[in-house]
Amino acid sequence: MVGRLTGGDPSLLRRINSAVVLHALRGAGSPTLTDLTRLTGLSRPTVEGVIEGLIEAGLVSESEPEEGGARRQGRPARRFRFRVEAGHLLGVEIGPHRVAALVSGLDGRIIGAGHREVPEAASADERLERVRQVIADVLRRAGVPRTSLRAVGVGTPGIVEADGTVRLGTALPGWTGLPLGQRLQRSFRCPVLVENDANAAAVAEHWKGAAKDSDDVVFVLAGLSPGAGSLIGGRLHRGFGGAAGEIGALHLLGREATPEALLSTTDEPLHPLDEPAVAQVFALAKQGDPRATAAVDRFIQRLVHNVAALVLALDPELVVIGGWASGLDGVLAPLRAELARYCLRPPRVTLSLLREAAVATGALRLALDHVEEELFAVEGATAARR
Amino acid sequence: MVGRLTGGDPSLLRRINSAVVLHALRGAGSPTLTDLTRLTGLSRPTVEGVIEGLIEAGLVSESEPEEGGARRQGRPARRFRFRVEAGHLLGVEIGPHRVAALVSGLDGRIIGAGHREVPEAASADERLERVRQVIADVLRRAGVPRTSLRAVGVGTPGIVEADGTVRLGTALPGWTGLPLGQRLQRSFRCPVLVENDANAAAVAEHWKGAAKDSDDVVFVLAGLSPGAGSLIGGRLHRGFGGAAGEIGALHLLGREATPEALLSTTDEPLHPLDEPAVAQVFALAKQGDPRATAAVDRFIQRLVHNVAALVLALDPELVVIGGWASGLDGVLAPLRAELARYCLRPPRVTLSLLREAAVATGALRLALDHVEEELFAVEGATAARR
Repeated sequence: MVGRLTGGDPSLLRRINSAVVLHALRGAGSPTLTDLTRLTGLSRPTVEGVIEGLIEAGLVSESEPEEGGARRQGRPARRFRFRVEAGHLLGVEIGPHRVAALVSGLDGRIIGAGHREVPEAASADERLERVRQVIADVLRRAGVPRTSLRAVGVGTPGIVEADGTVRLGTALPGWTGLPLGQRLQRSFRCPVLVENDANAAAVAEHWKGAAKDSDDVVFVLAGLSPGAGSLIGGRLHRGFGGAAGEIGALHLLGREATPEALLSTTDEPLHPLDEPAVAQVFALAKQGDPRATAAVDRFIQRLVHNVAALVLALDPELVVIGGWASGLDGVLAPLRAELARYCLRPPRVTLSLLREAAVATGALRLALDHVEEELFAVEGATAARR
Repeated sequence: MVGRLTGGDPSLLRRINSAVVLHALRGAGSPTLTDLTRLTGLSRPTVEGVIEGLIEAGLVSESEPEEGGARRQGRPARRFRFRVEAGHLLGVEIGPHRVAALVSGLDGRIIGAGHREVPEAASADERLERVRQVIADVLRRAGVPRTSLRAVGVGTPGIVEADGTVRLGTALPGWTGLPLGQRLQRSFRCPVLVENDANAAAVAEHWKGAAKDSDDVVFVLAGLSPGAGSLIGGRLHRGFGGAAGEIGALHLLGREATPEALLSTTDEPLHPLDEPAVAQVFALAKQGDPRATAAVDRFIQRLVHNVAALVLALDPELVVIGGWASGLDGVLAPLRAELARYCLRPPRVTLSLLREAAVATGALRLALDHVEEELFAVEGATAARR
């Protein structure tokens, strides 16, 4: 496996060295040059050269010498720190019922958050206006100037193209075909990265949620029609056209009942986004209402089938269930039992830890990834077979 | 993305340089040192050092100077070539009805092939004995001594663990729990790599079959109960426990009819491995027999559902249909039509080009991959995210 790592590229070595030093700086508190030499295995002149470059780029500063330290004789050693305040990141969720935003420094630690309700029938323009308000609020309250943003991540329902256009998004009015990345880009000078909401949530659970200890994860955003995001070997699997995990469409194939019909206790299907009506069906089922019980059974069976299809196709170590349906009673236990009974190698099944923060958190992580890739840019060594 | 590429490892640079020179040698005919310097971007002393090492390892030899070339004055430049005959590889299929073997040099070009029928009811011991016979025949006829083998790849039905044990393999008697890698290992001094048959076939179609131009492929081994192998970004996706793609188990979940019952025209299910009986049902359906037509419809509907589940989960660019059912009339057209109608981003669907050679060819490629990874061993630069 050699790929683009041709032997004679000195700039590659420089970038690797910068990345190694930056990683070490972020891991340590405020290391000295001697510390960094030990941590990185690089020579002192190399570390010095890299540090000078990072200081020039505004990413590293010399920290104040500690008072009363052990080194009393002579000049104290210079210490350095990564400037997390050198830039900021924004993570945004644009959902059917609410929009939310998180802001962080370059270390990804969240320093501000906000959200607003939005009517499910809102037009794309109304929804985007609400997004802009939330972002402005969050930045203002956190004291972060817009010019300090280095990247903005956005998570939203639908199949999202690489350029941030929503190829297909039936959950939100006016979403299909919307050049969402381009529309939001007008408000920022930094890159805006748009991602499917389940994909963003998968990234979030892996970063700081229920999937921290696993690199092979399927996150199921369980609603009436479930979507999923997958990490394979710790990396987001988007699929060739960004449509991986859209398992909710499976019932279309057999001309089977829609999720809205499945969960209805009458001859009329529920409204696709009517979560209170869904919750009521679950509540009635809990009280023993036979029609509601039958409806819930149909719904759970469909969900299990969809999750099983994902599990059989991908064979993850862990399945994380999120989305509003994950909060309902009687969803997790049957899922676990059925998967354990019938999957050839059943995965662990657990609930989302980040809950409603998952999508915005994942969007923030995607923004952070983008910035880190720029900071630490090293061409990956990919397999060059044949 | 930095991973294990710490800056101060000189042996890493040596290995990268060796790999770069070896790649260049294999691509060019019989290059001179000057050619290699130009092709690799490395300095002449570096190339010379690497070449000496490769000659010592038996992987490179100096080729005869060309006669009558343009360089008549003075000593002709030394030319070098990769010694494809420095070792050999074996690719083996162990299936329900037949066992097959392919042998190649280090360039992967096939120089010998053979196969034998095996009764589907054969015990594991009988089947392995048949495998040994086929391998001995193929090696003898190709004039390849067993000691020249550098790696053996094996493709077989079932979920295969990393150590070559069949975790679950209901298609072959005595297969579940069989330490297949260990059993075969006794016959060879080189590594034996065991892989699921659909996974091996996916690798084969990508190497020299219907998926040469795509890195995001699902290969469906279509039989009564379909299995699948997936390539994501050109790499085999085995899943966390080696069970990825075992989509045929999906019907277990809904307590739905078995494939053998689906395709039966009577109240009795077919025998799981009775391919002639299946072919007869398809033939009867073609003649208009209503029970056979209904059975075939049920079968196709199940296959489409399973393939759709894979497509929705993974979003591949291309689906390749192989296995015996791919040779039956009336399988490809409905698959294409249904996927195009209902998948959010329908993939291309095409037939296997390698047909019954797919599994053994893929096993050979996996053996070649293993040897190349040894030859070109460079620790991959993996993402070091938090």
